[in-house]
Amino acid sequence: MTTIIDGKQLAKEVNAKTKERVSALKERGRVPGLVVIIVGDDPASAIYVRNKHRKATQLGINSIVRELPATVSQEELLAIVETYNVDPSVHGILVQSPLPVGLDEQAIVAAIDPAKDVDGFHPLNVGRLFANLPGNHPVSCTPRGIMTMLHSLPVHLRGKHAVVVGRSMIVGRPMAAMLLNADMTVSVAHIYTKNLSELTRTADVLVVATGVAHLIKEKDVKPGAIVIDVGMDRDENGKLTGDVDFDGVAEKTAAITPVPGGVGPMTIATLMEQTVDLCEWSE
Amino acid sequence: MTTIIDGKQLAKEVNAKTKERVSALKERGRVPGLVVIIVGDDPASAIYVRNKHRKATQLGINSIVRELPATVSQEELLAIVETYNVDPSVHGILVQSPLPVGLDEQAIVAAIDPAKDVDGFHPLNVGRLFANLPGNHPVSCTPRGIMTMLHSLPVHLRGKHAVVVGRSMIVGRPMAAMLLNADMTVSVAHIYTKNLSELTRTADVLVVATGVAHLIKEKDVKPGAIVIDVGMDRDENGKLTGDVDFDGVAEKTAAITPVPGGVGPMTIATLMEQTVDLCEWSE
Repeated sequence: MTTIIDGKQLAKEVNAKTKERVSALKERGRVPGLVVIIVGDDPASAIYVRNKHRKATQLGINSIVRELPATVSQEELLAIVETYNVDPSVHGILVQSPLPVGLDEQAIVAAIDPAKDVDGFHPLNVGRLFANLPGNHPVSCTPRGIMTMLHSLPVHLRGKHAVVVGRSMIVGRPMAAMLLNADMTVSVAHIYTKNLSELTRTADVLVVATGVAHLIKEKDVKPGAIVIDVGMDRDENGKLTGDVDFDGVAEKTAAITPVPGGVGPMTIATLMEQTVDLCEWSE
Repeated sequence: MTTIIDGKQLAKEVNAKTKERVSALKERGRVPGLVVIIVGDDPASAIYVRNKHRKATQLGINSIVRELPATVSQEELLAIVETYNVDPSVHGILVQSPLPVGLDEQAIVAAIDPAKDVDGFHPLNVGRLFANLPGNHPVSCTPRGIMTMLHSLPVHLRGKHAVVVGRSMIVGRPMAAMLLNADMTVSVAHIYTKNLSELTRTADVLVVATGVAHLIKEKDVKPGAIVIDVGMDRDENGKLTGDVDFDGVAEKTAAITPVPGGVGPMTIATLMEQTVDLCEWSE
């Protein structure tokens, strides 16, 4: 029996808790504040930002969308980030990726106060995660949401083998760090990996984040594996699909996330959760 | 034919280059400065610190050993680190581990100016490594020395499978990050790993850093693998030995490091190399 991991339902549960925490904070006179900075007019980015704003507002978070023209200079953008760094009503700052050509995204991310780095992309927070340091620090939201999904399943992770396909800074690398910190044996595969199928077939937990539609097929998965599909791809008919060939793979697995309705809703719920964390941690 | 990787010889070559670079810097009126802070009277630490001081002095680095009593307070130690942070004649600061109980080692490491973090343990530098950010930043010396060893061999790393046994912040984790950044498929195993042998037998490059004498035996290694032994263990007769059962394993490998004379000499040579890097990068 395969469990289809219902990301929408789980996100609802996470959001319900977040809303309660926001209410409790407000009773004490505190309002979590989130600033999303968007530069230029990338249509996909505009949709992402609108979804974040809507969800934050629903949950009682004070959401500010700061729209800047594509002509903004690096210095101007850094100065704007700094105004939010020093603003005590702002607890989370997010710069929507990608930035227009000419802006140095890494320098912008590094300029965000690590205590307000709600995306968890600041190298200091990346280091804290990879070093498994104690204490509170924000982490990348997509892999954190996936950890919430994994912890919702009746399975022990310790000692089992996780294979992460993809090594991006947003998903693959922090995912590997979190699974390692959860005491899993962790393998990271990527574009240069030889014999990918040989490796993925040894995975008890398989996380796929490559952007290649249906890269992982039935033959690539061990029976009884847990499969997490981070892909948001388009198939030949333009339909949204994942990096995993769901129809072929699903019945072989113990649990699998669908696309859509799997990882996607969890990422935004986790972003909201982490905004409230940052507010609480700032006290 | 097995290649025994001669860490002593390779360290000599690295040191020769470092010495040349120090001379070139001195011609321009600059002297690389290294401060090693040692707290208390741990005898092993005293030997390590003495070896570092001797090697630095041999290479022309201005080496300062700052000995502090075990009674030093956290605040005093932080204040001392800060004096070196602001001292322009100091390019590398290293706090010898372990610190006496009562001192917060992580807080001390995080107080070192990341630009003088010659051990590469500051979380900001850990994050830069794990995020594979461009630009100059110091990294942990033992895995960096191992990368120098691997690059000395006539082998392409890209796409091959590296297995790292051990997940410490000093060796295992940064080693995994460096091998991933070198485009290898990377697996990290540790104390909770099930079926360790099954995993190690798939390794083209096997790095073992567990502190368990002779954990890896002939049956655990793939024919033709490159085996790097970070262990500094004692066998039943008190003799220095590694995590790998050298006699059984060596003839099966393409290349292997001995203990002693393998990774050990490379670590200290890399520390000196990185001190000079920090001096050059500070210009």
